[in-house]
Amino acid sequence: MNAHAEYFTFNTDRRREYINITDRVAQVVAASGIQEGMALVSAMHITAGVYVNDAESGIIRDIEEWLQRLAPEGPDYHHHRTGEVNGDAHLKNLLIGHEVIVPITDGRMDLGRWQQIYYAEFDGQRPKRLIVKVLGE
Amino acid sequence: MNAHAEYFTFNTDRRREYINITDRVAQVVAASGIQEGMALVSAMHITAGVYVNDAESGIIRDIEEWLQRLAPEGPDYHHHRTGEVNGDAHLKNLLIGHEVIVPITDGRMDLGRWQQIYYAEFDGQRPKRLIVKVLGE
Amino acid sequence: MNAHAEYFTFNTDRRREYINITDRVAQVVAASGIQEGMALVSAMHITAGVYVNDAESGIIRDIEEWLQRLAPEGPDYHHHRTGEVNGDAHLKNLLIGHEVIVPITDGRMDLGRWQQIYYAEFDGQRPKRLIVKVLGE
Repeated sequence: MNAHAEYFTFNTDRRREYINITDRVAQVVAASGIQEGMALVSAMHITAGVYVNDAESGIIRDIEEWLQRLAPEGPDYHHHRTGEVNGDAHLKNLLIGHEVIVPITDGRMDLGRWQQIYYAEFDGQRPKRLIVKVLGE
Repeated sequence: MNAHAEYFTFNTDRRREYINITDRVAQVVAASGIQEGMALVSAMHITAGVYVNDAESGIIRDIEEWLQRLAPEGPDYHHHRTGEVNGDAHLKNLLIGHEVIVPITDGRMDLGRWQQIYYAEFDGQRPKRLIVKVLGE
Repeated sequence: MNAHAEYFTFNTDRRREYINITDRVAQVVAASGIQEGMALVSAMHITAGVYVNDAESGIIRDIEEWLQRLAPEGPDYHHHRTGEVNGDAHLKNLLIGHEVIVPITDGRMDLGRWQQIYYAEFDGQRPKRLIVKVLGE
């Protein structure tokens, strides 16, 4: 069995951003030399997410509005008594999930045609880390 | 380490369907010969999900109604400007998740008594693919 | 490749509880001797969850209230026709997810500074099982 990990740091201009990281993950998989296995793509923070969906600007706006509806910014969360103001970002992280696993077959990510991997920043404007860990042979 | 993958194609009669795939995944695990490892069960589409829950018709109706409430069909999603009409299916995919990992112990899926694996179709009536990838030894 | 599994049983005093299991998972990883790999932390029930978020009492209350809002207790779920009264717990399980995967690097969980692993009980006061399965080398 072989293992290979790479770390990425994002520092977004806006509080929330949706960044297509499919090519970056593909490069980590290629660099690993692993032919059969899995790649874990996981945010190392509790106010960011990783998901697989469409690289289409309309659906990204729909996702943003949907997250705002189900885990709204602004309410006086209990968490805010600590001085934090990012309670909504914690809930958005739980809603969309903080990691995905990508199958690897014949040395490449075994994804469907429309499946793109996104890093979803919910509380940015500071450095946030992501790990891509590849396991296999 | 060994790896084994199988692909399934679903073409549902209705737009949304919930299909118990537990036995199919168990057969892939058995065919792999892997005794200790993990099985990734992942929809290869962005308008379908995979989840683990109960094989009980009432809860399946509850899940359907819950998904419709939190990610409703019909609203004029931004995504629909592309000509698509399946914005809700994208959000349902994100809500329920598109994949699960099943532990394998002694050559069998190591699930709790009530845990059943479902493929959830949110935009069917056309061929949709699923991958089951088993890794281990 | 090596594999190592341990099982935990929770029997909570209250119907819903949020239990920090980070140290327990770390001990399983240490006991496995695995240096590079992944740990699957998965509830073996369909009315409990596993998630990664903050060990801060305010956010735990926020998560509880948020789960109650999006998957409320009480409504007459179809599932209740079976005699069960835990329809909400099934939906909470789907909302928060029943498992996470933790990367392992240099023999330790490769988590961000604030990432803590929680077992979320949604229908307790009876024994419920969790599996931690470590794979790697």
